[in-house]
Amino acid sequence: MYELGVVYRNIPRTDAGTAGRLGAFGSATVHEAMGRVGLLKPYMRPIYAGAQVSGTAVTVLLHPGDNWMMHVVAEQIRPGDIVVAAITAECTDGYFGDLLATSFQARGAIGLVIDAGVRDVKTLTEMRFPVWSKAISSKGTIKATLGSVNIPVVCAGALVHPGDVIVADDDGVVCVPREMAARTLEAASAREANEGEKRARLAAGVLGLDMYKMREPLEKAGLRYID
Amino acid sequence: MYELGVVYRNIPRTDAGTAGRLGAFGSATVHEAMGRVGLLKPYMRPIYAGAQVSGTAVTVLLHPGDNWMMHVVAEQIRPGDIVVAAITAECTDGYFGDLLATSFQARGAIGLVIDAGVRDVKTLTEMRFPVWSKAISSKGTIKATLGSVNIPVVCAGALVHPGDVIVADDDGVVCVPREMAARTLEAASAREANEGEKRARLAAGVLGLDMYKMREPLEKAGLRYID
Amino acid sequence: MYELGVVYRNIPRTDAGTAGRLGAFGSATVHEAMGRVGLLKPYMRPIYAGAQVSGTAVTVLLHPGDNWMMHVVAEQIRPGDIVVAAITAECTDGYFGDLLATSFQARGAIGLVIDAGVRDVKTLTEMRFPVWSKAISSKGTIKATLGSVNIPVVCAGALVHPGDVIVADDDGVVCVPREMAARTLEAASAREANEGEKRARLAAGVLGLDMYKMREPLEKAGLRYID
Amino acid sequence: MYELGVVYRNIPRTDAGTAGRLGAFGSATVHEAMGRVGLLKPYMRPIYAGAQVSGTAVTVLLHPGDNWMMHVVAEQIRPGDIVVAAITAECTDGYFGDLLATSFQARGAIGLVIDAGVRDVKTLTEMRFPVWSKAISSKGTIKATLGSVNIPVVCAGALVHPGDVIVADDDGVVCVPREMAARTLEAASAREANEGEKRARLAAGVLGLDMYKMREPLEKAGLRYID
Amino acid sequence: MYELGVVYRNIPRTDAGTAGRLGAFGSATVHEAMGRVGLLKPYMRPIYAGAQVSGTAVTVLLHPGDNWMMHVVAEQIRPGDIVVAAITAECTDGYFGDLLATSFQARGAIGLVIDAGVRDVKTLTEMRFPVWSKAISSKGTIKATLGSVNIPVVCAGALVHPGDVIVADDDGVVCVPREMAARTLEAASAREANEGEKRARLAAGVLGLDMYKMREPLEKAGLRYID
Amino acid sequence: MYELGVVYRNIPRTDAGTAGRLGAFGSATVHEAMGRVGLLKPYMRPIYAGAQVSGTAVTVLLHPGDNWMMHVVAEQIRPGDIVVAAITAECTDGYFGDLLATSFQARGAIGLVIDAGVRDVKTLTEMRFPVWSKAISSKGTIKATLGSVNIPVVCAGALVHPGDVIVADDDGVVCVPREMAARTLEAASAREANEGEKRARLAAGVLGLDMYKMREPLEKAGLRYID
Repeated sequence: MYELGVVYRNIPRTDAGTAGRLGAFGSATVHEAMGRVGLLKPYMRPIYAGAQVSGTAVTVLLHPGDNWMMHVVAEQIRPGDIVVAAITAECTDGYFGDLLATSFQARGAIGLVIDAGVRDVKTLTEMRFPVWSKAISSKGTIKATLGSVNIPVVCAGALVHPGDVIVADDDGVVCVPREMAARTLEAASAREANEGEKRARLAAGVLGLDMYKMREPLEKAGLRYID
Repeated sequence: MYELGVVYRNIPRTDAGTAGRLGAFGSATVHEAMGRVGLLKPYMRPIYAGAQVSGTAVTVLLHPGDNWMMHVVAEQIRPGDIVVAAITAECTDGYFGDLLATSFQARGAIGLVIDAGVRDVKTLTEMRFPVWSKAISSKGTIKATLGSVNIPVVCAGALVHPGDVIVADDDGVVCVPREMAARTLEAASAREANEGEKRARLAAGVLGLDMYKMREPLEKAGLRYID
Repeated sequence: MYELGVVYRNIPRTDAGTAGRLGAFGSATVHEAMGRVGLLKPYMRPIYAGAQVSGTAVTVLLHPGDNWMMHVVAEQIRPGDIVVAAITAECTDGYFGDLLATSFQARGAIGLVIDAGVRDVKTLTEMRFPVWSKAISSKGTIKATLGSVNIPVVCAGALVHPGDVIVADDDGVVCVPREMAARTLEAASAREANEGEKRARLAAGVLGLDMYKMREPLEKAGLRYID
Repeated sequence: MYELGVVYRNIPRTDAGTAGRLGAFGSATVHEAMGRVGLLKPYMRPIYAGAQVSGTAVTVLLHPGDNWMMHVVAEQIRPGDIVVAAITAECTDGYFGDLLATSFQARGAIGLVIDAGVRDVKTLTEMRFPVWSKAISSKGTIKATLGSVNIPVVCAGALVHPGDVIVADDDGVVCVPREMAARTLEAASAREANEGEKRARLAAGVLGLDMYKMREPLEKAGLRYID
Repeated sequence: MYELGVVYRNIPRTDAGTAGRLGAFGSATVHEAMGRVGLLKPYMRPIYAGAQVSGTAVTVLLHPGDNWMMHVVAEQIRPGDIVVAAITAECTDGYFGDLLATSFQARGAIGLVIDAGVRDVKTLTEMRFPVWSKAISSKGTIKATLGSVNIPVVCAGALVHPGDVIVADDDGVVCVPREMAARTLEAASAREANEGEKRARLAAGVLGLDMYKMREPLEKAGLRYID
Repeated sequence: MYELGVVYRNIPRTDAGTAGRLGAFGSATVHEAMGRVGLLKPYMRPIYAGAQVSGTAVTVLLHPGDNWMMHVVAEQIRPGDIVVAAITAECTDGYFGDLLATSFQARGAIGLVIDAGVRDVKTLTEMRFPVWSKAISSKGTIKATLGSVNIPVVCAGALVHPGDVIVADDDGVVCVPREMAARTLEAASAREANEGEKRARLAAGVLGLDMYKMREPLEKAGLRYID
């Protein structure tokens, strides 16, 4: 957490296939499949609607108002990565704009998750480079202080290790630890198995009360109907 | 308010015609027509822009992190209803997603107002099932504790009785008590009567100062012009 | 700041050419060009995405829940102006809707920046009348108390004098004092000069580390790479 | 809720003995005894530590920035009452200071609960007139608009009817509806019955795990110990 | 506002007698006497209860996380001054602790008002050096970037010029512009003239309704009493 | 982080001497000595002023509104421990009151740090059992769901491992990782070495500008003095 001024170059990444397949389920299903943990706080919002990505985390720890390390992390990006940026204190400054996005995209990054602000959101939207952030702000940053790259970070209340899987969409951002990725994928697949059938029955007017057999447990819990 | 574990099945609803006609005026005009009361707090935001609905409230009281009663309320929905969900403490969890929306829609619900979070917002948007909520969150909920259905609830600071009219659009959410619905509809109609004419005059460059005859009262109040 | 009940009619405005050209750079570049000052707090958000305007400020100081002076300021608008509305206390009420927007637009206003709420946002969006605000709210206001027009105001934490340039877009709102406008325009132009070239190089995979010659200063600062 | 401009003079109050005895248990125990409902939001804080009161609610609905009705409610106070003040929109202005406190105290009020701000808190502390509020603010208010007295109000998220019991201390504020007061008192007494004995056992080092016989249910729920 | 890297050494100060006498009235009365303007936002809270000061402002503009200019402003302090510190962006870091307080006190400062955080509050309390701040935080700051001293600043939403009077107590912080100080003192004195008499009458049970002759205007406004 | 339903019984703790000596420096000095990292967010506030403790962390992960694991963690407390409680989602409920405090104190705990609410604060204050929390709330919790004890947790934005040192006082809460404790103690001692001398010189009127030899670097940075 607290190692400053270091860049870890070779990090173990979750394999790309697992990371990619997790994304198809979406953050809500993945979060359930993990046992309802790993979610970044819901103040993290996408800069445009409709993006749905999953990839491997490269992490960067930044100081308030200073984006120097964003250029350092750019070099560590490999295709399929999502950059996860944490700040050592609360900050809403715009750490990231269209030039950095161009660079990240050229390196193969497929998204950014940052516990601070971003800018040039109109251009980022046109580029279809998705960002989940705490704020949008024109405020620029300086380049003066060392942080670190690819150390474990706390981002929006969640611990993220380099190489973990990030699943992000309109509902939010989930971090799946590397060692839990395979089993989470399995659990997510199982959850989704009969979703289509359930949806069809509900659309036909069947009640969840009946489909999930809730009437008896509700009655046992003491639910009373009054006409 | 505090009756837990009960479901009121037969509630008096505002007649559908009145409820429907109120919606056409929009929440801002209806709020004015009520005498500037009945508004839910402005942190309640639509998950997508452009929806404008009005309907009769069926209410549900939930516990933090527990959406069991959402399945109970589904059965009480009649066509034209809007579900109003209150929570016994602050919570941003995602209580509602695409499966429940499918069920609600099948029962005839035309919207949801919830003082907590929702998820699957991309799918909800595609389904055109409008939701006004405090948050968007992937975080799921459990099904363990009884709340109540169709009791009076406080939702986002406003008291809502089952059967009241809910008017919701991009500007916010207003609750019109059942016994005030008819007279609010009248007042709203009166307000709108010459809106078109006013708009035309303003568009032609006439000033509100003159159209509303404000110059004299402003002068009396002491307004001074300095060149 | 504290002169109540006065309207200044003849205010010196930044020349329209300078004001207009500043807008083309966007709020982020202008904010940098000013030396990273002059930004309104990032809670100020546009009611719809994509608007990008710049113009000269006419200011209005309002009381909480009272929009009487909005009609007074309408008369002082000249083509190319942006109305900047400050409130004497925190308030999220909807001070401004489609009728006032029609009037403002007829007078030549090209936008509104308000440290409070607005309503009728669907219609405002259709009219393409851009507003940057703290909130969206159906809640209406009364017309009872005098404020002032064209005095200096503090809006969302920034001091705005009448005639200053306002640059507003999806990233936020910046106020450029009239006496800094020309030199800020120059500085912004200089910053943008080789943006295209930089973007091309970054898109080609060149790293900011090399393009900006950061490797040496980073090493001097003590950055260590670990394999 | 929405009746403006009325003062109900004769309200049924919970009997003083019940109201008083509830206070001795404190807000936490009373909240438990009610089934964990009736709590005002925790942003309501006392202006000084150590006050613990209970009394019957007289309610007042005020407009933002306007404390005219505080003088109207003063006349309706009877000994043992606590004034509960709700506002029609969010406001932090200082509605109440030492003069009003002098008047309230003279009428027999034993406290104030207000979903807004107060001032003169140094003097109020010296007077030992306890106030639970959302804010402390020097900002004064005007006297211009009618609200109501002794109608049901929503205060800090809780519905309060005139005559309900208010229990307030350092932990927060609970509203006990009049018709639940007697049975809540009973439930609270039962809860407290063997508190002293429990405290003694815990102080002697006995674990809650054993005292409450939790080891078996925890094991059943799957708790594992790892050495 | 935006002049960086400058220190104004000779500033005109409100005369000490006026500044001192204003303090005796307290922030609430002074705020009223000014016509209800000039108040810093109510999130500014004293680090300990009971302090009541007034003095002349020396201002300092700081960058987030950087307190270098605090040492520069120390030299500009004269006996009776209150330092007013504004930050160019939101920050809660602890800019000020016991060493700086020792220095400020030695120079004659009688308080600090800072739109950020402070630390060592236990020692500051023992020293009886009053501080009004947005936050309390252990987080230290660096000394790297120039701000300015004795330029006009926006602090907690209020414009403060060097030499203005600051009145601060448990209710909040008010800034009285130098040119309004004398007349505000007069207005405050007039307000206080018969406070003692009013208090005595209210304490004797006289109602504000009668003392302020409100019954007639309330009736005219339409107030109805219901038995 | 995400291991649910486990209790680690034997955790390596920082040695008591080191933990204790760190506390004497206070959270601000320790935070500096660590290189300005490890701080819990400043919304964590003590329930009463003046407490200053340091001890070894035993951690507990709880679910919103459920304090069952507080009884489980009690058994793992050893003399000199501070319990650090994290919640899987945002919650302000009162998880902890006088009975649990009695039990914790009997087991040797010297404090609690909890990213949620507590209650019975009056009694806790009388017991001198210090708590740093996000909220104070009467709202009770249930005992239904397993969390974990002595796993790494994120509390108020900081990662805490069992056995780390917690330093908490009026300025906030810092977590010193076990492996950094010895060197942080050294660094803190070095920082404090000549504090007394510095304070004496500042009290005598010497300026930080001179004592820290800042005049030259400020001049180099471009600071200008204007008379």
